[in-house]
Amino acid sequence: MLDILHRIGVTSSPEAVYDALTTIDGLAGWWTEDTTGDSEVGGVVRFRFPPGGFDMKVLETKPAERVLWEVVDGPEEWIGTRVRFELKQEDDYTVVLFRHLGWREPVEFMYHCSTKWASYLLSLKKYVETGTGDPAPRDVRISNWH
Amino acid sequence: MLDILHRIGVTSSPEAVYDALTTIDGLAGWWTEDTTGDSEVGGVVRFRFPPGGFDMKVLETKPAERVLWEVVDGPEEWIGTRVRFELKQEDDYTVVLFRHLGWREPVEFMYHCSTKWASYLLSLKKYVETGTGDPAPRDVRISNWH
Repeated sequence: MLDILHRIGVTSSPEAVYDALTTIDGLAGWWTEDTTGDSEVGGVVRFRFPPGGFDMKVLETKPAERVLWEVVDGPEEWIGTRVRFELKQEDDYTVVLFRHLGWREPVEFMYHCSTKWASYLLSLKKYVETGTGDPAPRDVRISNWH
Repeated sequence: MLDILHRIGVTSSPEAVYDALTTIDGLAGWWTEDTTGDSEVGGVVRFRFPPGGFDMKVLETKPAERVLWEVVDGPEEWIGTRVRFELKQEDDYTVVLFRHLGWREPVEFMYHCSTKWASYLLSLKKYVETGTGDPAPRDVRISNWH
């Protein structure tokens, strides 16, 4: 099994980052504007992008510390994988350790998703720090796959 | 063994991207301004950043297609790992498949390097497309680890 890993630091409180990861408005502020559903544990959040989207079941949330999702619908390579955010305070930063766990093969789509996650996590940082992120469809274009 | 994967698309020729990966001036244009050494096969290129740096031995180059380095000096976690760039044309893009191969453990530094590589690869894209990248020390700050 293969994982995508990332680490960013946000100059804000763990609570503010946690809100951006666990509310529909927060998620729409940095990942994709077209975010709907139920972000409580056991609920399913639907993230839609111009070319398609993902449905995430919320498996676990721990205020200011951790969020865990399981992909229940979306591209075949994503189904059954998990996305985890772990938060901790360090210096004046809330550090976010991100892991997209359980890829079965290092397909080219995994290369793409890794870079795209980095770009969305920088959007999360910007959103929490300034109030404005770069969610889809205004996200940073990184290649012909968008 | 664990790898960092990324994929970007550059709206330029494979030859132009290859030059940015295989000349000292090119590398200094997107990764770190403080780049010196011998970028021919068998040579060692020294990349220096404010907090330290990496020495890469050039193992393989194939014009417009592939570059492979081995880390011969730098942080302990990097020594012996390899960095590979594979290039191909798709639509109007030169697609870069990047792989930093052979991490022994998913240490927090690997999370950081993954995000940082994404940010430097977007700098490579910008450098080749516009002539100006964001190399260290003018690179994008992503956290308390810079």
